[in-house]
Amino acid sequence: MAEPVLIREVGLRDGLQMAKTVLSTAQKLDFARSAVAAGLREIEATSFVPAHVIPQFADAAEVAAGAKVLAGATVSALVVNLKGAIRAFDAGLRKVNYVVSASEAHSLANARRSTDAALAEFGLIVAERRSRNLDGQVVLGCGIATAFGCTLQGEVPAARVVAIAETLACEGADEIMAADTVGYGDPRQVRHMFEALCRTVGTIPLAAHFHDTRGLGLANVAAALEAGVRRFDASLGGLGGCPFAPGATGNIGTEDCAFMLEAMGFDTGIEIEALLALRRRLESWLPDERFSAGIARAGLPKTFRRMAAPD
Amino acid sequence: MAEPVLIREVGLRDGLQMAKTVLSTAQKLDFARSAVAAGLREIEATSFVPAHVIPQFADAAEVAAGAKVLAGATVSALVVNLKGAIRAFDAGLRKVNYVVSASEAHSLANARRSTDAALAEFGLIVAERRSRNLDGQVVLGCGIATAFGCTLQGEVPAARVVAIAETLACEGADEIMAADTVGYGDPRQVRHMFEALCRTVGTIPLAAHFHDTRGLGLANVAAALEAGVRRFDASLGGLGGCPFAPGATGNIGTEDCAFMLEAMGFDTGIEIEALLALRRRLESWLPDERFSAGIARAGLPKTFRRMAAPD
Repeated sequence: MAEPVLIREVGLRDGLQMAKTVLSTAQKLDFARSAVAAGLREIEATSFVPAHVIPQFADAAEVAAGAKVLAGATVSALVVNLKGAIRAFDAGLRKVNYVVSASEAHSLANARRSTDAALAEFGLIVAERRSRNLDGQVVLGCGIATAFGCTLQGEVPAARVVAIAETLACEGADEIMAADTVGYGDPRQVRHMFEALCRTVGTIPLAAHFHDTRGLGLANVAAALEAGVRRFDASLGGLGGCPFAPGATGNIGTEDCAFMLEAMGFDTGIEIEALLALRRRLESWLPDERFSAGIARAGLPKTFRRMAAPD
Repeated sequence: MAEPVLIREVGLRDGLQMAKTVLSTAQKLDFARSAVAAGLREIEATSFVPAHVIPQFADAAEVAAGAKVLAGATVSALVVNLKGAIRAFDAGLRKVNYVVSASEAHSLANARRSTDAALAEFGLIVAERRSRNLDGQVVLGCGIATAFGCTLQGEVPAARVVAIAETLACEGADEIMAADTVGYGDPRQVRHMFEALCRTVGTIPLAAHFHDTRGLGLANVAAALEAGVRRFDASLGGLGGCPFAPGATGNIGTEDCAFMLEAMGFDTGIEIEALLALRRRLESWLPDERFSAGIARAGLPKTFRRMAAPD
């Protein structure tokens, strides 16, 4: 039996938040449905942010409602404050992901509050879940953005990231994710960071979120695997982008990440050919985006075998 | 003191062998000179193959003569038979690299002889070196192509690769390289392979040659590092290609590999900005080639520091 690794598809959230084209709700739900059909077990379907901030997510409630009924996958949404979390709880999602920036400068630029204030906000979200009697029913994940460095601030001390993770664990996070928001991380740093986080958060699952800005995304996945991480964000076609890194690519590509993990002997549940078919549709919907290369260009090796037979 | 890692620039050989444009000898020597000035400590400058097979290398003797005098770097050439090795010895190079294919099918297609016949040919090259009293003066490296799988044959047993390495070690190879010619390798396979090779070849240095065909090139470098490998082939701009993988990219890019290694705390000796300047010149010389992205597109992180001060 191959060991399972979870890939969370964030194309509908991270992948779309900078896209020049606004997809229709129907297209987004087609994306979600096809991704789940291809074997994705978790999807971050949207982001509950004000529509005037990111028009792409004006239909967050509709996308959440349409996606949450998909069988066989956890459907989550990103929130950046209590208000967003309330909307996500109202939408009936079983998982909600919050994010804090380890970089003070990024936190102020991105969320208009300090890191400590953002941590306190997470406490309010946990309390809100409790007041709704949703403990044990709604999973609360929390990402730590700019955990490997920041284009604004530069260095982000690893000790600060570990201290944030400790606070999140105490506050009640069910999953803690370290995110290389700007593609600064390298395999050695990634491994050391996750080893330190493992020692800190005990049994709370760790997740990793890498951007492939400088080509090290999959090398960082392999390094995080060595440290015991078994949950990874990825975005179909490597969509996504960072406003602070012009010309940079987005997240690691789901199809290439799945290929690497399966080739290494892990079971992702993903049927890569089905994912590539969805990717081709997505390329036709988003003609102005740059899609990453890899498996989509070169094809699967003749020697490739999936770890698990399709369900 | 940071631990040194050797990156061998193979852009003048692997990078050019499929290029649509034939560079002038002066351009090639400019490339070699600039690469050494940027801190590259080893360059595979050309290939001694018949000019009618690869017209790009018709000036192999001139390039070797011009490059071998560069101070501060080892200049080598690729040869695929005794005839080529004799030309390389005649040219006065201090390092000569031979290659055998672990895949029978690839060996027959590429070198028109079986793997065993290719291994016997290496014995003739070693004997030729001895007959010229060049032992200890000319380093003989040998690469094992298709060591991680083959587009023609499919699987290549790891035991076969290890057995080939053992033969090469007995015959007198001074360096043994395992090459993922078609970009089939994954980090787990790479690590296991090099761990096995380490156990087999004793004190003979191991080197790795990865293509980034499916995006795993740098992840494979990181895996090989874990297994103790400290010598890597790379090609500026990720040039190179494989006739058996249409649309595939070439080697891992020198600039991205150097960035990753330096970020991880290794000393490559390379000044990446100088390498990027050379890359821009190379792009103007080779307008029909696809260059890989990474550092060239996104720039170095604000947090980046070279491990060693420039000489």
